[in-house]
Amino acid sequence: MLAAQSDVQQDTPEVRVTEWRLAPGAATGHHTHGMDYVIVPVTTSAMTIVAPDGSRSISNIVAGKSYFRKAGVEHDVLNETDKEIVFLEVEIKQK
Amino acid sequence: MLAAQSDVQQDTPEVRVTEWRLAPGAATGHHTHGMDYVIVPVTTSAMTIVAPDGSRSISNIVAGKSYFRKAGVEHDVLNETDKEIVFLEVEIKQK
Repeated sequence: MLAAQSDVQQDTPEVRVTEWRLAPGAATGHHTHGMDYVIVPVTTSAMTIVAPDGSRSISNIVAGKSYFRKAGVEHDVLNETDKEIVFLEVEIKQK
Repeated sequence: MLAAQSDVQQDTPEVRVTEWRLAPGAATGHHTHGMDYVIVPVTTSAMTIVAPDGSRSISNIVAGKSYFRKAGVEHDVLNETDKEIVFLEVEIKQK
């Protein structure tokens, strides 16, 4: 499986902002979110989400339409489409 | 001066995410940021920034390229271009 590409745009005492780029066929790999986070989609895309039990679902994201999740979310994210998926992850550091 | 349009996408104990849309000729109005914040540009645009002393500068923003600022920033933001400017503001709430 092709690895997603990540670029840390900001890393301050308050936040970390990471740009994620998933080429067709790429995956983030299974991971657990250690911080609360906001996702800001840059592309309008269909992401494949694989839960810890292996079940799969499609999450439709829309450019510029954010969502928030609490720490503890655990999943793999795949691009099974034929176009690049790009989003920014804004992680909120505990103070 | 035309008012910028804002849409609060998320408002949780941790963050507030606001989408800002500035039509040509629109302005946010003079304001002081009460929270640390991340800006995620949705459009690639040239924003006009007016400082408290009235001095003006151009800030070039690029879609998907974030920046972080601490609370206390004070300015007006204008769209003096002929295309809409759109960005998301992610404000980090103190815990």
